[in-house]
Amino acid sequence: MTQPMALAPAEPGERLGIVAGGGALPRIVAAEARQSGWAPFIVPIADGRLYDWSAWDHRSLSWAQTGDVFTLLRTHGIATVVFCGTISVRPDYRSFVPSLRTLGMLPEILRMVRGGDDSLLRAVSGSFEVRGFRVLSVQSLVPNLLTPDGVLTRREPTGPAAAAVQRAAQAAQQLGRLDIGQAAVASCDRVIAVEGIEGTGEMLQRVADLRGRGRIGRGEPTVLFKAFKPQQDERFDLPSIGVETVRQAEAAGLSGIALTAERSLIIESEGVIEALDAAGLFLVGVSDPTMGDAR
Amino acid sequence: MTQPMALAPAEPGERLGIVAGGGALPRIVAAEARQSGWAPFIVPIADGRLYDWSAWDHRSLSWAQTGDVFTLLRTHGIATVVFCGTISVRPDYRSFVPSLRTLGMLPEILRMVRGGDDSLLRAVSGSFEVRGFRVLSVQSLVPNLLTPDGVLTRREPTGPAAAAVQRAAQAAQQLGRLDIGQAAVASCDRVIAVEGIEGTGEMLQRVADLRGRGRIGRGEPTVLFKAFKPQQDERFDLPSIGVETVRQAEAAGLSGIALTAERSLIIESEGVIEALDAAGLFLVGVSDPTMGDAR
Repeated sequence: MTQPMALAPAEPGERLGIVAGGGALPRIVAAEARQSGWAPFIVPIADGRLYDWSAWDHRSLSWAQTGDVFTLLRTHGIATVVFCGTISVRPDYRSFVPSLRTLGMLPEILRMVRGGDDSLLRAVSGSFEVRGFRVLSVQSLVPNLLTPDGVLTRREPTGPAAAAVQRAAQAAQQLGRLDIGQAAVASCDRVIAVEGIEGTGEMLQRVADLRGRGRIGRGEPTVLFKAFKPQQDERFDLPSIGVETVRQAEAAGLSGIALTAERSLIIESEGVIEALDAAGLFLVGVSDPTMGDAR
Repeated sequence: MTQPMALAPAEPGERLGIVAGGGALPRIVAAEARQSGWAPFIVPIADGRLYDWSAWDHRSLSWAQTGDVFTLLRTHGIATVVFCGTISVRPDYRSFVPSLRTLGMLPEILRMVRGGDDSLLRAVSGSFEVRGFRVLSVQSLVPNLLTPDGVLTRREPTGPAAAAVQRAAQAAQQLGRLDIGQAAVASCDRVIAVEGIEGTGEMLQRVADLRGRGRIGRGEPTVLFKAFKPQQDERFDLPSIGVETVRQAEAAGLSGIALTAERSLIIESEGVIEALDAAGLFLVGVSDPTMGDAR
C-alpha cells in the first residue's frame, strides 16, 4: 500500500494548535507533526489534562475556560488546529462558574453540546472555522495511522467468524447512522452488544462479563466491528483501536476485530498487531462501505 | 378503555401447557388461565426452574430434555400451549449429553438457536405448530397486561422529556428492526445506552453507573423506551416492565418510561404505577407505530 505523505506546514516552524483529549493519540500527533516541521502548541482539555505535557509548549483549559481557546490560540499566532484524543466526560455548563469569555459563548456552547458525539464534534469544528481557523484531520498529519484494507494479522476471519464480521458491521453501521455509537460485537447468529456513550472499552468488559456468566456459547466466535459513520466528518473522531483494545478484546473472548478500511485509526499499530498475533486474534480492514447494509 | 375478554377454553378444565421461564409473568398467566377455566400444566425451563411450582401440576425440563417436551405434553392430553417468562441463558448444545429424543431433534434445535431472540422464539413456536399444537399469546389469556395508550402516571412527559421519548423510541425501534434488542435510553439530545443480549435491567444499571461517574448531565432528562419489534410475532416476548424495572429506572435517574401501546406488557400494573408515582416518574403508552421513525 502506498501511504499518502504527512501534511507539512507551508513554512517550517509554522504553529499548529493541538486540542488534546486523553489516550496515546495526542502525543503521537504532536511528535509526528514536529517531525514534519510544525511547531506544536498543545491545549489539553478534559481527559487530556491528566497527562504530563510539561515537555511541550502547552496551556491546559478547564471546561470553564473553554471560551478562552480562540484568544489563546490567536495570542500564540496559531491559525491551524487539530482535535485528537478521547473526551469521556461532557461538560455540564450549569454546574460551574464560567470565565467571562466562556460566559459570552454559552449560548453557542449549549447549542453544541446537544446531540450525539458526531454532531458535537461537527459543531465544535464549525465554531473554529467560523472564526477563521483551519481545522486539520489527524490522518492528514499522521497518515500511517489509517487502517489498510484486508487482513493485517496471521489469523484470518473464516467461516462463522467471517459471518460475524458481516453481522457486526451491519449493526455498527446502523448505530452510526443514528449517531448512537461506533461499535458492536456480534457472532454469526446474533448481535451481542452495542455501544452507547459508555465507549468500546466498557462494552467489551460487558461482553467479558456476559461470557463469564454463560450467556455466550463456547463455540460462538464473536467479533468487534468499529465503523466509520456514513455521515461523519472524516476529520474527527474516526473509529480507532489501540493496544488496550486488543487486551479488552482478548479478555472478552473475541475471535477478532474489524474496522472500516481507510476511515479508522490503529494507534501504535506495531504493538497492536504483535498483541493480536500473540493472542491469536485477527484484525481486518473492511473497505466496502455498503457491506452489511443490504437489508 | 374496553379490555378484550380473556380467552376461555372450549370446555372448562381443558388443559393448557405453560412453558415457563423466569420472572413473575408465568405465575400470573397460570393463575389467570385457571380463573378462566383452563387446567394449567406447567413446564418450567431455564430460569423458570429456579421457582417453586410445587402447588401446580408441573414437570421441569433441563435443556438436555428439551426434545421430550412434545411427548410430555401429549401424554398429559395437552394441545394448547403458551410461552412466557424470561430465559437469560441460551443452551449450549455442545456442552451436555442430550436425552434420546433431544438427540433426534438436535439438527432442528441447532437451527433454532441461530439468530436473535425474535428468530429463536419464532422457530420454537413453529416447531410446536408443525407438530399440531396451538400456540397462544400471553395477552390473549391475560389481556389486562397490555399497555394502554397514553399517560398512566401522575407525572407526564413534557418539554425535553417528551423529546427524549421520541429519540429513545427511534433508537429502540431501529434496534428492534435489526433483532438486536428492544430497549434504549435517551435524552432529548442523544442516545445514552442501547440494549444487546444483556437485557433491560443490566442496561439500566449501566446508565446508573454512567450517571454516577458524571457522564450524564444533571439537567438532562432521560427516558427508557421498550419497543415492539415491527417484524415480531405478537405472541412472543412482547416488551414488558414490572416493579423491578421501576426500581432500576429510578436508580438510573430516569424521568420516565415509555412503551409501545397495545403491544407491550405491564406486569403487576397496580404496583408498577404506585411505584412510579412514588418515585415521580412517568409511564406512557405510545401508540403510533411510525413515531420516531421519520428520518
